[in-house]
Amino acid sequence: MSVDERRPTKVKRLPREVRERQILDAAVRVFSEHGYHNASMDEISDVAGVSKPMIYAYLGHKEDLFAACIRREASMLIEAIAAGVEAELPPDMQLWHGLRAFFRFVGAQKESWRVLHRQATSQGGPFSEELLAMRDRAIALVDALLVRSATSRGMDEAATKSTEALAAALVGASESLADWWLDHPEVPDKVVAGWLMNLVWMGFGDLVDGHVWTPATPTAG
Amino acid sequence: MSVDERRPTKVKRLPREVRERQILDAAVRVFSEHGYHNASMDEISDVAGVSKPMIYAYLGHKEDLFAACIRREASMLIEAIAAGVEAELPPDMQLWHGLRAFFRFVGAQKESWRVLHRQATSQGGPFSEELLAMRDRAIALVDALLVRSATSRGMDEAATKSTEALAAALVGASESLADWWLDHPEVPDKVVAGWLMNLVWMGFGDLVDGHVWTPATPTAG
Repeated sequence: MSVDERRPTKVKRLPREVRERQILDAAVRVFSEHGYHNASMDEISDVAGVSKPMIYAYLGHKEDLFAACIRREASMLIEAIAAGVEAELPPDMQLWHGLRAFFRFVGAQKESWRVLHRQATSQGGPFSEELLAMRDRAIALVDALLVRSATSRGMDEAATKSTEALAAALVGASESLADWWLDHPEVPDKVVAGWLMNLVWMGFGDLVDGHVWTPATPTAG
Repeated sequence: MSVDERRPTKVKRLPREVRERQILDAAVRVFSEHGYHNASMDEISDVAGVSKPMIYAYLGHKEDLFAACIRREASMLIEAIAAGVEAELPPDMQLWHGLRAFFRFVGAQKESWRVLHRQATSQGGPFSEELLAMRDRAIALVDALLVRSATSRGMDEAATKSTEALAAALVGASESLADWWLDHPEVPDKVVAGWLMNLVWMGFGDLVDGHVWTPATPTAG
């Protein structure tokens, strides 16, 4: 306390990871609001309460900072989905929890999703690479779920060969639906997740006949 | 004949639309091979057999030319899908023909797909706008199919409300699977289309139980 009183104007020293988190939080917000090109390091510095030289020293210039945002947000998203999927659940419930986690993340962190997906896609270049690496991790996660599910039901090799392709299709469907959802925020996250779950679990064939999928227990959602 | 003989070095006069097609064909090929940044107008001019000043006069500079490529390829793709879908067929066969047309187009014109999707996505900027407009047309096409199918089966309003969202999911699934397929060209187009058809028509629930969808007539594929 007495030390602080002797240096009243000095910014309090914080561990590097705390500073980095402050910077990244601010950067996601500013990139999301203004887009990559119009976002200024001055505003990120203001919002973060961290000087520009310190931002440069910790996370580099604007392009590095944007790439760091994509990496962090992607990791958080993948972790949220992986945490939602429990291997001992039946396959439909695993898929349901994974989809729920995905749409909950997108819904709770719309800014993240904007940075992660729309901004990174529309910027192109090195950011698309970060995005593709993230997609590959998501596809591998879904693929593992499908393989577990298929082999536990005794599906043959020809059928399981297609799991990676179907995982890619499912990841694409989730991304595309999340983009649609950004423009239709009035739909609750659980409803959006339920639509996709029904599409990929029941299929249109059952849906047009009025057969829908519901979670195994009423409180599972 | 005698006129041509008197002007042997002059390039033969062709209607403007023929020249434009030559230029666009060449541009798609060169953009697809080298990527937007590394593609040179000199090479496009060489491949097209059309002078650079004429390319500039007809289709503008590199950015305009790339946008024109996306617009043309997107229109061809949408027309191929729309032609595949016949309103008097049952909904599953409409969807099947639409998916077949999509994967046949991507398979036959891998260069187009590369330009349309991968290149345009990784370039970002104005090209993403062209791409988004194309996606919106594709989503509207699928949505119309689902609404027709749903209302003909007497689905209620709540269910039909979700058709646009499901159409967006299906378009995203198709794009993502087509990207996966570019890296797995050994899989026949009909097989890839069949995987997606089964996913979205039967759903994983039926698939893991071994129930698969097949076209109504053996020769329909």
